[in-house]
Amino acid sequence: MIGLGLIGGSLVRAATAAGRVTWGATASVETADAARADGYDVARDTDEALLRARDEDALVVLATPLTAVATVLRRVDAMAPECRLTDVVSVQAPVTEAVLRLAPRTRYVGGHPMAGTAESGWPAGSAKLFDRANWVVIAEDDTDPEVWADVAELAWACGSLVVPSGVREHDAAVGRISHLTHLFAAILASVAAAGNDPWSGAGGDDGALALTLAAGSFADATRVMDTRPELVLAMCEGNRAGLLPAVDDALGRLGAARGSLASTGGLAATVNAGHQARMEWHELRSAPARRTIPRAPLDLAELRKLGHAGTQLTGWSA
Amino acid sequence: MIGLGLIGGSLVRAATAAGRVTWGATASVETADAARADGYDVARDTDEALLRARDEDALVVLATPLTAVATVLRRVDAMAPECRLTDVVSVQAPVTEAVLRLAPRTRYVGGHPMAGTAESGWPAGSAKLFDRANWVVIAEDDTDPEVWADVAELAWACGSLVVPSGVREHDAAVGRISHLTHLFAAILASVAAAGNDPWSGAGGDDGALALTLAAGSFADATRVMDTRPELVLAMCEGNRAGLLPAVDDALGRLGAARGSLASTGGLAATVNAGHQARMEWHELRSAPARRTIPRAPLDLAELRKLGHAGTQLTGWSA
Repeated sequence: MIGLGLIGGSLVRAATAAGRVTWGATASVETADAARADGYDVARDTDEALLRARDEDALVVLATPLTAVATVLRRVDAMAPECRLTDVVSVQAPVTEAVLRLAPRTRYVGGHPMAGTAESGWPAGSAKLFDRANWVVIAEDDTDPEVWADVAELAWACGSLVVPSGVREHDAAVGRISHLTHLFAAILASVAAAGNDPWSGAGGDDGALALTLAAGSFADATRVMDTRPELVLAMCEGNRAGLLPAVDDALGRLGAARGSLASTGGLAATVNAGHQARMEWHELRSAPARRTIPRAPLDLAELRKLGHAGTQLTGWSA
Repeated sequence: MIGLGLIGGSLVRAATAAGRVTWGATASVETADAARADGYDVARDTDEALLRARDEDALVVLATPLTAVATVLRRVDAMAPECRLTDVVSVQAPVTEAVLRLAPRTRYVGGHPMAGTAESGWPAGSAKLFDRANWVVIAEDDTDPEVWADVAELAWACGSLVVPSGVREHDAAVGRISHLTHLFAAILASVAAAGNDPWSGAGGDDGALALTLAAGSFADATRVMDTRPELVLAMCEGNRAGLLPAVDDALGRLGAARGSLASTGGLAATVNAGHQARMEWHELRSAPARRTIPRAPLDLAELRKLGHAGTQLTGWSA
């Protein structure tokens, strides 16, 4: 485990609890001390952890922020150039591109466990973090089936459900459900605070009244703006290619709503579609498509198709 | 109290608990029976309730949906044409306009207690609903100070904080914090479900993957789409004038974010502004501006100024 923050630290705990041999590395002396004090095996440095992974043909997990990925990959290429490799960074295209460029001989299969909390760092970690979470495991045509199985088994060992996906489908999906949500939250908060009120006789640019009255739905919809801006930026800007089509779709829909509101005064098309989409989401959650798959041979195109239909894989078929 | 749904029913309970003489009317026989069974005074019909209000110079509270306001106002004009009148309908401009047209002799002062739950109807009501809630009381230059004081005292008796506002400032503020939030929720859910993914090789128009992965921030940001669409539509369409400038502001900001993301890849301006706005909201909540005001004379322009600055009034000065 390279990186022992919230995700990496939780993963070390979860995998250890599941009976796996784990060891980690972190750039932070404080984190290393804390993890060792909690009884976990932390190497002196990244190189040491990677050499051991090479010697034992272990699965290396990249659990750093996106900004540190290139640095770590250079060490991977130097120390364990053909290792089994996955990541839990989040956005897939930039990590995949960096792996191809900096550690091209690794047997890399991208991953994204969709779990987190508002906290960060080793102390906030928990072996239970991935329980019942979706864990996307990338299945492209050139994916190594052995390593795909390694990553899926790690996810299952941590209590997660495996959702296979292509790189671009994954990035487009998280662009729509997560990164667009962050962008909308930013804009909603800004519009409220700007108080750009053409009627106001009292000065115009003052959102104190709106912010004072804001509660309930506004509080929930802008909650993610509590996160430090640099983390939101790293996430959203890192998924530029996946976020752009989502923004364009949203702009089209908001423009259509605006036109309808201004001309006929009606918003039925917008609101009905939104309600129906939310009901679809509830239905998928209450009756998820879950199944097992045969261990071999792995059909990568079939895996992508299952993920595309929202299927959660629970393990190997008997 | 004309209307005994969630808001009207809670208000009757809260005002009664505060020692006030209250009576109500409702178009629903079921609701009337339920309220009577709970010990509340429910008139045979709206006319009877209004005649009694005329005889006792009581404050009449319009607590119906916006769609029923015109019908009730015609009865007000027939039965108690000069009564003290307020409302708890929500959007102010359409109610004010209807009062001027249909019951022009009433001493009307608009109001908006900003409280609610996901439930509706008499059984969902609670005497505690308005506790610590903001209750906007409209202060225009032609507002009757006696009735303004009546409405403020009712709000205080129910445990609320009074925020004075002009009609248009109020409607613009709720357009930004509530109705735009609903519109954003609708669009966010639709974009996720549409799965308008230019990359997807598996059919394009399928949001199953995105909806399966959606949780956390998406769930919170689209929560209001659980509400029945007709209620959302009544609210948003009823505030067309207050919502349009908010949508235009949002379109401008979303377009700017899109341009920046597409050209430089940066979203710092958008995200930093959103974070700062959210921090302003937290600050206002943790250190709200609260004060008392002298009972007489009421300075209506000064009241609007206080509300514009986000001031919550807690009672009369000693």
